[in-house]
Amino acid sequence: MGSYLLGIDLGGTKVSAAVFDEGNRIVGRARAKTRAQRDDEDVFETIAKTGREAVADAGIESKHLIALGIGSPGPLDPDSGYIVDSVNIKFKNFPLGPRLSERFGCPAFVINDVSAGTYGEFKAGAGRGASHVLGIFIGTGIGGGLILDGSLYHGFSKNAGEVGHIIIKAGGPQCGCGNRGCLEALASRTAMTRKIKKAIRTGHKTIIKRMVDKKADVIPSSVLKEAYDAGDRVVMKVVHQAAHYVGVGVGSLVNLLGPEAVVLGGGVIDALGEYMMETIESVTREVAFEFTTKDLRIVRAELGDDSGVTGAALLARESLSYV
Amino acid sequence: MGSYLLGIDLGGTKVSAAVFDEGNRIVGRARAKTRAQRDDEDVFETIAKTGREAVADAGIESKHLIALGIGSPGPLDPDSGYIVDSVNIKFKNFPLGPRLSERFGCPAFVINDVSAGTYGEFKAGAGRGASHVLGIFIGTGIGGGLILDGSLYHGFSKNAGEVGHIIIKAGGPQCGCGNRGCLEALASRTAMTRKIKKAIRTGHKTIIKRMVDKKADVIPSSVLKEAYDAGDRVVMKVVHQAAHYVGVGVGSLVNLLGPEAVVLGGGVIDALGEYMMETIESVTREVAFEFTTKDLRIVRAELGDDSGVTGAALLARESLSYV
Repeated sequence: MGSYLLGIDLGGTKVSAAVFDEGNRIVGRARAKTRAQRDDEDVFETIAKTGREAVADAGIESKHLIALGIGSPGPLDPDSGYIVDSVNIKFKNFPLGPRLSERFGCPAFVINDVSAGTYGEFKAGAGRGASHVLGIFIGTGIGGGLILDGSLYHGFSKNAGEVGHIIIKAGGPQCGCGNRGCLEALASRTAMTRKIKKAIRTGHKTIIKRMVDKKADVIPSSVLKEAYDAGDRVVMKVVHQAAHYVGVGVGSLVNLLGPEAVVLGGGVIDALGEYMMETIESVTREVAFEFTTKDLRIVRAELGDDSGVTGAALLARESLSYV
Repeated sequence: MGSYLLGIDLGGTKVSAAVFDEGNRIVGRARAKTRAQRDDEDVFETIAKTGREAVADAGIESKHLIALGIGSPGPLDPDSGYIVDSVNIKFKNFPLGPRLSERFGCPAFVINDVSAGTYGEFKAGAGRGASHVLGIFIGTGIGGGLILDGSLYHGFSKNAGEVGHIIIKAGGPQCGCGNRGCLEALASRTAMTRKIKKAIRTGHKTIIKRMVDKKADVIPSSVLKEAYDAGDRVVMKVVHQAAHYVGVGVGSLVNLLGPEAVVLGGGVIDALGEYMMETIESVTREVAFEFTTKDLRIVRAELGDDSGVTGAALLARESLSYV
């Protein structure tokens, strides 16, 4: 029989699910498009179906699950399992945890998606062995998670870890959150896209111009990498600037929190990490006090797309002992 | 006899000591000038003497102390009780904890001075009742402390809480730490002094010009308050700008940590809080997400000069159970 865990990662674009055995190995998988524009019940059914498919793929049944965990965009309430709100998905005070628990017949735990990714890296990835881990995931936006003294930190708001919305350049570029100069407005893929489009408008030569649709909202990481590899000056400069700002943000957070490991992941780092990590690390060490950086590890995430499902599942196992 | 605690607050200018009874009431006090330019042994003797005087003032003897705590500038190692380094005081790998323990015949605990202040406010001041408290103390510099899940957070660096050295305006004014745009470089008394001096140099009218010595390093908070009260435009503008930047920093940290209470203290807030708190609060609530601020308290410290001795003493009591 064994005791299996189901981990689900709910994103604005896709839902991933994986079943983990007692040794925390993935023994079944499934994936589907979120189609986030649909109403809450439709999205819920997609989540449930993807979970069921992962269970079937593992060759087990739901009754063999001891718990499930789901990483979701928030804000959310990890205690009640309700999604309070979500920018991309039409959940509004939606009882995602209770509904999944009922559907799968096991305890269900809900956690912020990026916190789940951070927890996955902490337990089974690049943050292994460290007790204090700062996780930063850079993609369309920038999210983060905090492992403090060996536990995921929720804070009083229950949604701590909004690394993307610390202001590092007051009066700087507009952020989607309404502020100016947030880390996300300076170093996310959205921010890079804005800068590249501006360069194109002002007549700078870049191969990006013929690689992407003019109206494309956000340039894919893979395209950025291709242009960088081809030696495109505009893209190289924009990527280095983004890495610089990530370093400014990480350095500030290292001063504040004094972590043992900083784990950087997400689509941008997956594609461009080889070009960004050196700058991120050197700026971080320049910004932060020597006593906070001398034993600090600054590393790339190891689990890729699996960090979310892994973190959600392992956190569910951990949470069982507190039920 | 009762079990008494000795709390000491070591600053660059003065050493304060207070004896606390079982009910955490102050029953004895002493104070001396640090005269920080002297060598480590001389400063140590001043600390020990001030502690002895507080004990005598309480009408007890050292043997009645169950523990002592001292807040000191760092970085330091709370586990070993060593002061690793100190900008203002000539301690370099100085065994302050062990030496005080030997001298007073009781366990001695060493903690960062601002962390001690934050802990004091958390246990006995404006942060009472909250489990997640961000403490920010604004004076010549800006320091902070983090109470997370009911405990003082040290981090892996053992010196977490460097709130003054998060960068909130990349490329901004030079900070004493070598970076540009740190919160301390924008909102401390040192930063305000720099701006006022620049205003004077560029011909702006301000009564500060005749209130302070031209060569004065840092304008005292009391002088800033007097000028503000007199309606001095330059000082009013500089104070409001500082409050704005404190709000930017606090808002960022609230997004990151989701605390329950933010406690603001230190000489600048003691003198100018009535003119700064409204701006700090409104900017914080503008910057941070609504889900992190709706139940957040933003309050002034209540213990004034006693926050450090109180925090050091109460943390010593707390630490005893882990010895």
